[in-house]
Amino acid sequence: VTVVPGHLMAGEMGEQPSVLSNILDRQSVVRDLARRIGRYSPRFVLLAARGSSDNAALYAKYLVEVLLGMPAGLASPSSITTYHARPSLADVLFIAVSQSGFSPDLIDSTVAAREAGAMTLAVTNDAESPLAGESQLVFDIGAGKEAAVAATKTYTAELLSLFLIVDSMRDGTGEEARTVPDAVADALDQASAVESLVPDLSATNVALITARGYSYATACEAALKLVETARLPAFSYSGADLLHGPIALVGADVAVLGIVPEGQGGVAISPVLDRCRELGACVRTVGSSRSAAIDIRVRPVAEEVAPVVEVVPFQLLSQRTSVAKGFNPDAPQGLRKITLTT
Amino acid sequence: VTVVPGHLMAGEMGEQPSVLSNILDRQSVVRDLARRIGRYSPRFVLLAARGSSDNAALYAKYLVEVLLGMPAGLASPSSITTYHARPSLADVLFIAVSQSGFSPDLIDSTVAAREAGAMTLAVTNDAESPLAGESQLVFDIGAGKEAAVAATKTYTAELLSLFLIVDSMRDGTGEEARTVPDAVADALDQASAVESLVPDLSATNVALITARGYSYATACEAALKLVETARLPAFSYSGADLLHGPIALVGADVAVLGIVPEGQGGVAISPVLDRCRELGACVRTVGSSRSAAIDIRVRPVAEEVAPVVEVVPFQLLSQRTSVAKGFNPDAPQGLRKITLTT
Repeated sequence: VTVVPGHLMAGEMGEQPSVLSNILDRQSVVRDLARRIGRYSPRFVLLAARGSSDNAALYAKYLVEVLLGMPAGLASPSSITTYHARPSLADVLFIAVSQSGFSPDLIDSTVAAREAGAMTLAVTNDAESPLAGESQLVFDIGAGKEAAVAATKTYTAELLSLFLIVDSMRDGTGEEARTVPDAVADALDQASAVESLVPDLSATNVALITARGYSYATACEAALKLVETARLPAFSYSGADLLHGPIALVGADVAVLGIVPEGQGGVAISPVLDRCRELGACVRTVGSSRSAAIDIRVRPVAEEVAPVVEVVPFQLLSQRTSVAKGFNPDAPQGLRKITLTT
Repeated sequence: VTVVPGHLMAGEMGEQPSVLSNILDRQSVVRDLARRIGRYSPRFVLLAARGSSDNAALYAKYLVEVLLGMPAGLASPSSITTYHARPSLADVLFIAVSQSGFSPDLIDSTVAAREAGAMTLAVTNDAESPLAGESQLVFDIGAGKEAAVAATKTYTAELLSLFLIVDSMRDGTGEEARTVPDAVADALDQASAVESLVPDLSATNVALITARGYSYATACEAALKLVETARLPAFSYSGADLLHGPIALVGADVAVLGIVPEGQGGVAISPVLDRCRELGACVRTVGSSRSAAIDIRVRPVAEEVAPVVEVVPFQLLSQRTSVAKGFNPDAPQGLRKITLTT
């Protein structure tokens, strides 16, 4: 696909500030969407997605719970596609998140949700896709064609779109997100801090990425990116879940990466990272916390939008570790850009 | 803790048939509980748990979606404990699943859920625990003291309890589960088939466990057990999620374990395992499917209760791989029996 391995991915990462700015410029579209959702008065939000978009959905779940005070869940598409469940979904807002809008399980789940009484919303990079066609509401993230298999600009575009939609549902104006494009541009400039982590990460057999709260979605996306581009066994655990079992894995032979934003999520993860250090692990940190030692520092933004910024160093890290290990992050083994699962 | 490593865990695994039989004998308690839930008429179910109990909660989520046709979600305790979210939970059944009933985040989440209007149910091995005390409804899984850190009998007891509760909510009599204790006893006898997998699993750097539908919870619990007892980097992915990225990890150096029950979940996972074989992975299978090659065969039971049976070979496998690697599965490094997270 590419001559220089990782060239496509690097180019698409670099587009993120402008993609995100364009989304912020479409606040009136977001407001109109939120008004239509408001008329339906949902009481519960279900999110359905796969791959990187599933991590964006996880982020949105926290937003819905914290900012809207509404219960939310991640739908299991196989309940519908494998077991033909037909749940009763009156008062449910069903949000499908998909870059391509082509995966049959998401399309089938959306059709089933609509027939079950839900209000359906597609957040997608293709407003002409079958998923968009089956959804009552559509938000086009407008990230432009993404050619690298590993999602980067579409992931951050999904995050910001979901934040603006949820924020608008509580009559917000999206102002917390205004500094995000600049903070992302700044994060893209942290390449030398990122480079300093590549040798250790290329050599380790296992990486473990941990965070709490909003940043847990970042940990999941960072792990997925390292798995798919660098073939590195990278795990993501919430800080609390880590202490309930997987901490047994942690030792001198495991690289631990902690995400430490300024705010409650950063405060909550710090004792977990201390525990990993006591067990001999090499712990590195990414984030904006002013009270913790940070290896790759990003600019502080409002904590609820920090995941849009803090994933960027992990994109860089994945791309560079992949290349350092002799792979091509633009076209990982066994993957195509659009995955069709049923 | 023990003289012979793994002695406690082996003993507790062996108690499972009688623990499960005792739960089946308490159908009248289950029916009473379901009647009280029925009077509340929930429209959504939220589940909160940590560690192995979180995998039991994942299983229950599928049960609620498929058997009750009701939307369900896994609660993120940190929304409440870290960000102080106070969601509106009228019409919500909030189920906390916890062996010990002592984890502060689950207790706090339960209190917050009750104050927000939810009906709260604790499924726990300690009916005198603080979690039980804060819950309006309690189901005591009655598994007896579990001394090994790695949960075994309390996990299968939670699964069966949750099945019977959900089944009773649809006026079921639990009859699908009657053969489960015998099938578990039979699975405990498959030690020689399990032993044949131990050398490969002790030698591999990465294991990947995959399934679809109900059995996805089994994959998650199997991976957690291998991580915590054998310090083996073991991943769990739903078959669909695997194809959306992590498949890049699969190759000759990765051990793939697939769960193939008789039924729809087994049919859905088979093409995913074929794809892993094409990529050169050594694929081994656990389950009851009559149409697939199975390495560790368990007795077929109704698909919705198959996870209670099919996890047993993975318990044996974890315990033996742990001992083969020179660890003590009864007391993994860095873990205590009761984990207190906030």
